[in-house]
Amino acid sequence: MGSNTSFVADLLTSIAERGRTLLDRSHRVSGATRVETLAERCHTLLSGRGEASGVALAADILDRYAHMKTGESIAFFEVLAEKFGPDPESLAAAIAAYGQNGPSAVADLHRASEPRRQELFRRFNLAPGGTLSLVRMREQLMEAMVRRRDLAEVDRDFAHLFSSWFNRGFLVLKRIDWSTPANVLEKIIRYEAVHAIRDWDDLRARVDSPDRRCYAFFHPALVDEPLIFVEVALMKESPGAIFPILDPARPLLRPQDATTAVFYSISNCQKGLAGVSFGNFLIKQVLEEIARELPALTTFVTLSPVPGFRKWLDAERRAEQSVVLSAADRKALETLDTPDWAEKPELREELAAVLAPIAAYYFLAARTPKGTPVDPVARFHLGNGARLERINPMGDLSAKGLAQASGLMVNYRYTPADIEKNHEAFAGKGEIVASTQVRKLLKVDPASRALVPVT
Amino acid sequence: MGSNTSFVADLLTSIAERGRTLLDRSHRVSGATRVETLAERCHTLLSGRGEASGVALAADILDRYAHMKTGESIAFFEVLAEKFGPDPESLAAAIAAYGQNGPSAVADLHRASEPRRQELFRRFNLAPGGTLSLVRMREQLMEAMVRRRDLAEVDRDFAHLFSSWFNRGFLVLKRIDWSTPANVLEKIIRYEAVHAIRDWDDLRARVDSPDRRCYAFFHPALVDEPLIFVEVALMKESPGAIFPILDPARPLLRPQDATTAVFYSISNCQKGLAGVSFGNFLIKQVLEEIARELPALTTFVTLSPVPGFRKWLDAERRAEQSVVLSAADRKALETLDTPDWAEKPELREELAAVLAPIAAYYFLAARTPKGTPVDPVARFHLGNGARLERINPMGDLSAKGLAQASGLMVNYRYTPADIEKNHEAFAGKGEIVASTQVRKLLKVDPASRALVPVT
Amino acid sequence: MGSNTSFVADLLTSIAERGRTLLDRSHRVSGATRVETLAERCHTLLSGRGEASGVALAADILDRYAHMKTGESIAFFEVLAEKFGPDPESLAAAIAAYGQNGPSAVADLHRASEPRRQELFRRFNLAPGGTLSLVRMREQLMEAMVRRRDLAEVDRDFAHLFSSWFNRGFLVLKRIDWSTPANVLEKIIRYEAVHAIRDWDDLRARVDSPDRRCYAFFHPALVDEPLIFVEVALMKESPGAIFPILDPARPLLRPQDATTAVFYSISNCQKGLAGVSFGNFLIKQVLEEIARELPALTTFVTLSPVPGFRKWLDAERRAEQSVVLSAADRKALETLDTPDWAEKPELREELAAVLAPIAAYYFLAARTPKGTPVDPVARFHLGNGARLERINPMGDLSAKGLAQASGLMVNYRYTPADIEKNHEAFAGKGEIVASTQVRKLLKVDPASRALVPVT
Amino acid sequence: MGSNTSFVADLLTSIAERGRTLLDRSHRVSGATRVETLAERCHTLLSGRGEASGVALAADILDRYAHMKTGESIAFFEVLAEKFGPDPESLAAAIAAYGQNGPSAVADLHRASEPRRQELFRRFNLAPGGTLSLVRMREQLMEAMVRRRDLAEVDRDFAHLFSSWFNRGFLVLKRIDWSTPANVLEKIIRYEAVHAIRDWDDLRARVDSPDRRCYAFFHPALVDEPLIFVEVALMKESPGAIFPILDPARPLLRPQDATTAVFYSISNCQKGLAGVSFGNFLIKQVLEEIARELPALTTFVTLSPVPGFRKWLDAERRAEQSVVLSAADRKALETLDTPDWAEKPELREELAAVLAPIAAYYFLAARTPKGTPVDPVARFHLGNGARLERINPMGDLSAKGLAQASGLMVNYRYTPADIEKNHEAFAGKGEIVASTQVRKLLKVDPASRALVPVT
Repeated sequence: MGSNTSFVADLLTSIAERGRTLLDRSHRVSGATRVETLAERCHTLLSGRGEASGVALAADILDRYAHMKTGESIAFFEVLAEKFGPDPESLAAAIAAYGQNGPSAVADLHRASEPRRQELFRRFNLAPGGTLSLVRMREQLMEAMVRRRDLAEVDRDFAHLFSSWFNRGFLVLKRIDWSTPANVLEKIIRYEAVHAIRDWDDLRARVDSPDRRCYAFFHPALVDEPLIFVEVALMKESPGAIFPILDPARPLLRPQDATTAVFYSISNCQKGLAGVSFGNFLIKQVLEEIARELPALTTFVTLSPVPGFRKWLDAERRAEQSVVLSAADRKALETLDTPDWAEKPELREELAAVLAPIAAYYFLAARTPKGTPVDPVARFHLGNGARLERINPMGDLSAKGLAQASGLMVNYRYTPADIEKNHEAFAGKGEIVASTQVRKLLKVDPASRALVPVT
Repeated sequence: MGSNTSFVADLLTSIAERGRTLLDRSHRVSGATRVETLAERCHTLLSGRGEASGVALAADILDRYAHMKTGESIAFFEVLAEKFGPDPESLAAAIAAYGQNGPSAVADLHRASEPRRQELFRRFNLAPGGTLSLVRMREQLMEAMVRRRDLAEVDRDFAHLFSSWFNRGFLVLKRIDWSTPANVLEKIIRYEAVHAIRDWDDLRARVDSPDRRCYAFFHPALVDEPLIFVEVALMKESPGAIFPILDPARPLLRPQDATTAVFYSISNCQKGLAGVSFGNFLIKQVLEEIARELPALTTFVTLSPVPGFRKWLDAERRAEQSVVLSAADRKALETLDTPDWAEKPELREELAAVLAPIAAYYFLAARTPKGTPVDPVARFHLGNGARLERINPMGDLSAKGLAQASGLMVNYRYTPADIEKNHEAFAGKGEIVASTQVRKLLKVDPASRALVPVT
Repeated sequence: MGSNTSFVADLLTSIAERGRTLLDRSHRVSGATRVETLAERCHTLLSGRGEASGVALAADILDRYAHMKTGESIAFFEVLAEKFGPDPESLAAAIAAYGQNGPSAVADLHRASEPRRQELFRRFNLAPGGTLSLVRMREQLMEAMVRRRDLAEVDRDFAHLFSSWFNRGFLVLKRIDWSTPANVLEKIIRYEAVHAIRDWDDLRARVDSPDRRCYAFFHPALVDEPLIFVEVALMKESPGAIFPILDPARPLLRPQDATTAVFYSISNCQKGLAGVSFGNFLIKQVLEEIARELPALTTFVTLSPVPGFRKWLDAERRAEQSVVLSAADRKALETLDTPDWAEKPELREELAAVLAPIAAYYFLAARTPKGTPVDPVARFHLGNGARLERINPMGDLSAKGLAQASGLMVNYRYTPADIEKNHEAFAGKGEIVASTQVRKLLKVDPASRALVPVT
Repeated sequence: MGSNTSFVADLLTSIAERGRTLLDRSHRVSGATRVETLAERCHTLLSGRGEASGVALAADILDRYAHMKTGESIAFFEVLAEKFGPDPESLAAAIAAYGQNGPSAVADLHRASEPRRQELFRRFNLAPGGTLSLVRMREQLMEAMVRRRDLAEVDRDFAHLFSSWFNRGFLVLKRIDWSTPANVLEKIIRYEAVHAIRDWDDLRARVDSPDRRCYAFFHPALVDEPLIFVEVALMKESPGAIFPILDPARPLLRPQDATTAVFYSISNCQKGLAGVSFGNFLIKQVLEEIARELPALTTFVTLSPVPGFRKWLDAERRAEQSVVLSAADRKALETLDTPDWAEKPELREELAAVLAPIAAYYFLAARTPKGTPVDPVARFHLGNGARLERINPMGDLSAKGLAQASGLMVNYRYTPADIEKNHEAFAGKGEIVASTQVRKLLKVDPASRALVPVT
């Protein structure tokens, strides 16, 4: 195999790797030098000069980035923040032109104000596996941002780009079951954020039982990476607690006998895609899929955690004055401070009676300074057009459930015909749409016309 | 099948179509009203209010658009141009804030200057088939722009969005052959823009012969629509004319005997994606694929048309003075004005000798006012890092070939090891990289130090 | 790439091709020698000695066979017939053992009586593409059998093997549409045996119109080769003629408005699979598929040719006496002998009235010497459990339709609830299940109690 | 959804289930009655009468069979043995005809001697999932045969059928890795028969490490069921022991650095396919695949168990006289009877020296009464054309390895260029092809000219 072979070998490597050859790849250089080199290459990639070997150059940059230590990546993010914003002179000129010419100069102004990072990120994506690398890069950026709020503008560019790339129109819904490839199932185990999956047997019980369903969104450029997934239980009624759903020894239900689909866990998988909203679309499309498969279903509810409740309740209890807690409530709630109360049925029963109206107040009346409901999960489902259906004081007695919500769970209900109306009421007027059952847990204080819990 | 059935039926339609029900869908209303209604819905889709039923609303808008007459679509484009730019007040505020706070206010300025059209287009994409609808919408916009240059700013938003969505990282290369679905092959026939494909037999000869290859880029959201494709002939030498390649009666070559891969036709398929460049990436990736499959290949060339030559030559002939044409040349070129010269071998031979140095001048010395080569195909290949390899005066004697280039074709050669260097020379210094053979066709006029044709 | 490379190259070829190396592959040897060599290799393949390199040997044999001329293949079939039957001595011994030991010796007798061809054919199938080669080999055998009935026993072995291999349980039903690969569609054009497909446009009208469907059975080992396919028209009534179905200018029907699915063409694709019955299963499974897709369908009928009618009618007309033809009939039928009668509406009308009761007699009363209906298509559909629904005298006025049936077509109707009963009546009692409408076309002659046409 | 709906519902069920409706499906009837009913339906399925609803009838039979208790299935097998053999009268007639007419009557004799079970089994396969049901049925039959040798003739029919259906030409080789569906991977865990896979982590180490490969054969009708699989380790030398291969803490090797592919485990998955040989083809095709992927590989060996060694050795030790064991050997081998010897390095070393020549004798000289090597794994690999390469006395010190072979393992080597020759030597002359290294472990006793171990 003479010259032809070497020709081809040369050719194959040259195309993919040409960009690398002229430059040292020594990893013995200092971190500072490595960051500098990386920044330089980013400039080359952005310039016309990098065009012919853009794919190789992008691959080289992402590879170098992947081998950096934390301190180096942060330094690289700083460079992105400082050196890859818009060009100040062009921007000043564009502002001036806009002042003179008005609307017709807007497009140039928009372009001039675009941080060059955005084009840089788009070019990173030329590399094989570039999309996943970018998602991971933003994940690391977000970690750095905990202490470095000055990197937020870099993050805004990622967020802008990802909103465009991960547009709902490009997502693909897939059922997750026992015939799903193991490398995807493994990620379902890893990414489950609400009710942890213990092992492969637990996973199998959730995706391979006749009365369970699991669906995920995927993006074509991230084939093995679910973006978000939801787990569904088919039941004969809306559940008040999570344990019976997760119990490996539960009796199985024939799917055709189910009347209620319960969305009992929704997990976002990619931290690097924070802020790109998939959940709303996922719930609605899965609802459609399941309704088509099982026409006997009449009810679609969630069984949801209340992650803000405990913190809010503790604050109310600590406060000298509380609109919501009566003296009797305060007394009764002291039980929460005793160890192992959740294991004693009579204490659970007493507390349930006390907590229910307080929880109703939490959802219906309590507000953040911005005027929105305190609970983030409530904001999500109500914003999607669901209704707060039922309050389940002893819904999750696991350590996590007790820690974040003193055991409280709730059901949100999705009724297709009401989704738009509910959404309007919530988004337009800030109204909390709730069932009569939930609303009855409160009374209106005639003095203040405010909602107060019924105790 | 009592109430459950109707419940489910209701559910399925309600989710997908809810947005439509409250509004008349009568198509008897006037065009003006239709455009107004559409604009209104676009506003709803952009507002928070449309969130819960965004998918249905987007589908409704695209469906209404699809049924519009030309005049109505143009009116709709006007609305997009006038009513969906950035909000002037927010923009003014953002400019002011930038004046005060500098860099930290740049992100807000960029956001405030983004035409609301961009978010609107992203939301259109929620609808099933949205991406293709958007590509078609831009195609119609571009047709309208022939007379309506004021719509150009709408076009810039499409272009910006598509550059992001059709990023190389999301494209998939597929070989087109006889096992490709007919609905894709049909589009290869339809979109071939260089050497028309007569019928299915001609197609088959080009994709199903052992010494032919065809590759296309696809985007996951447009599964049946090739974006760009290239046709390749495997040969034993660089060809000087197109006819022998397309000849149905040509002898077949065993692929393993080939030494040369000839890219003889590259066609963009989607007018709506104008300005998003795929060709560069396609050529290089196909080159890699073929080199991997057939290690005996040593040469990669194009056989390319010269679409600007005839027009340029006619201008030179009409001009009273010409640097390039001598009196003898002018005389000899009169043959071009005689009918059927291309059918006479001796005339062809005479003309070839005259045209070759003129063509060399056209490529090496002639320039547009911007200083770039006159020929658009030359700009493409030289910009990609190819070298001008050979001039073939009688390369394409078809009516089209005579009309646009008096029969002239050329070969550009891609040598992997030289691509970067060639690109740098062209892009950085404006240098035309050409083979000695081509350069020898010219001499340097010692008086002017300018290139002149050797006659 | 020194010795390792050559090692691997050697390895790859050695496994697949070892069997070939020791033997001359010269094709200059005489046909007789070639047949002898082939036979010898068949013996080796059957012997234990060929085991290690069975795949290569089988490939070699099939390749040699493929390059044979017709005379040589026939000589090879002769060898198969003469030399690859069961071993006479073993068989004699097995018969003797059976005589002595009875049932317990049956298995050995069965094995001893199996022609060694069967195992040989199974071993041919080791070669890549072996299954298709075997199907083609039988096709050639069947052609040879036209003159060489002595080869029939070889054919029986093929038939036995193919019945087992092409068992319904291994077939896959696929819809054929415009997204089907071109190499499959091309075969639909080629194999259509009832109403020829003119070109790709005609094909597209049949598989890509909203009111048309096409389905085929495939076998996993013959991925690009349909085994049998059926074309279906969705209509609002049972059609009486084929022209309106094939008319390219016909109005389209929305599928959801259709009430009737018309199976208007069924074609077997592989002559080499003659005798393996697919049609019965195909019709029933397609019926299921379409009924599931379009719940509004109430009627499933064929529009079928009557390939035996013209020949039978001509015989009746030639006969001096005929039970079915009256003198008036004979007179009226003379029109059939005039040129272009089919183009004259009034002649068509007259003939239709005369032919209908004769056709009813043909189906209901005429019989082959074996007692079965004369018409092969009738035998097929009645045997499948369909009912003879309607007689359409001027159903197919194409040259082919006139030649084989004087224009006659019929509808058979498949009613799922009656299929079993109809089949029983036909298969068990020889009863022709027909609609009242068809039966009324006949009267019972009280003298003979025989069916006679009503004239 | 009025009558149309019920029509379609009726239709869909009627086609698939018609056969069931006329008959009671009560499972309260006695086992004897159930077997009788099943037998009756088998007769119907074989008769012409079952043709129209063959699919439904086959599905019904397999469903009924699946619900039978062990005793009932055995009773059913008895019925198959007694009532579904060939028809004695037809067979007698065919024998007579053969006596009279000779060869031309052979085909009829073969057909008449075919047990009707074979056609019955082919018709069972009409049912969805029929192939898998048949494989499972034979598995149960084989279990029953342990005590009921009279069922062997039923088994021969299964074996005959499966040999035809699971012909190599229909098998598909697939790589098993971490992107394989979990339901297949689960079966790899379950079916591993040589070195048990502990859990999903162990599985992942075997299929998802860069220096490991796993391949399986599949049949298109059994998509989720591997038929046989092989596990391969990529190494730098032929291994002498299994532990380092299975060690989860082993260092990883870059695949391109490997020189040796080690087949360290081959497992048949389907007991019901016993006697259909896949292993030979699997090894050779996997060898090809891996050699293509990794051209640097030069050596292909197994690391194989020696399942017959311990039993043979124990017998030799018990025997009063032994050609192979000297008195010193007997003494030294007593160590094998001491507990925990395998944990003491010095004992292992002593024993290794003693066992190696004895093992060489076991392979090279010991023979079964039939004259074949004693070891079944040796018969398999030598029959495939491999060479006995090396004896590894302390290759497998697991409980299983000690129990079956006192720790002994061996390497067989596959050298493509020698496979045919080795196979010939073994199959034709009964020669054991072994490396010099192995042969040197023995000496030839000049007195007896027999091989004796060197001690």
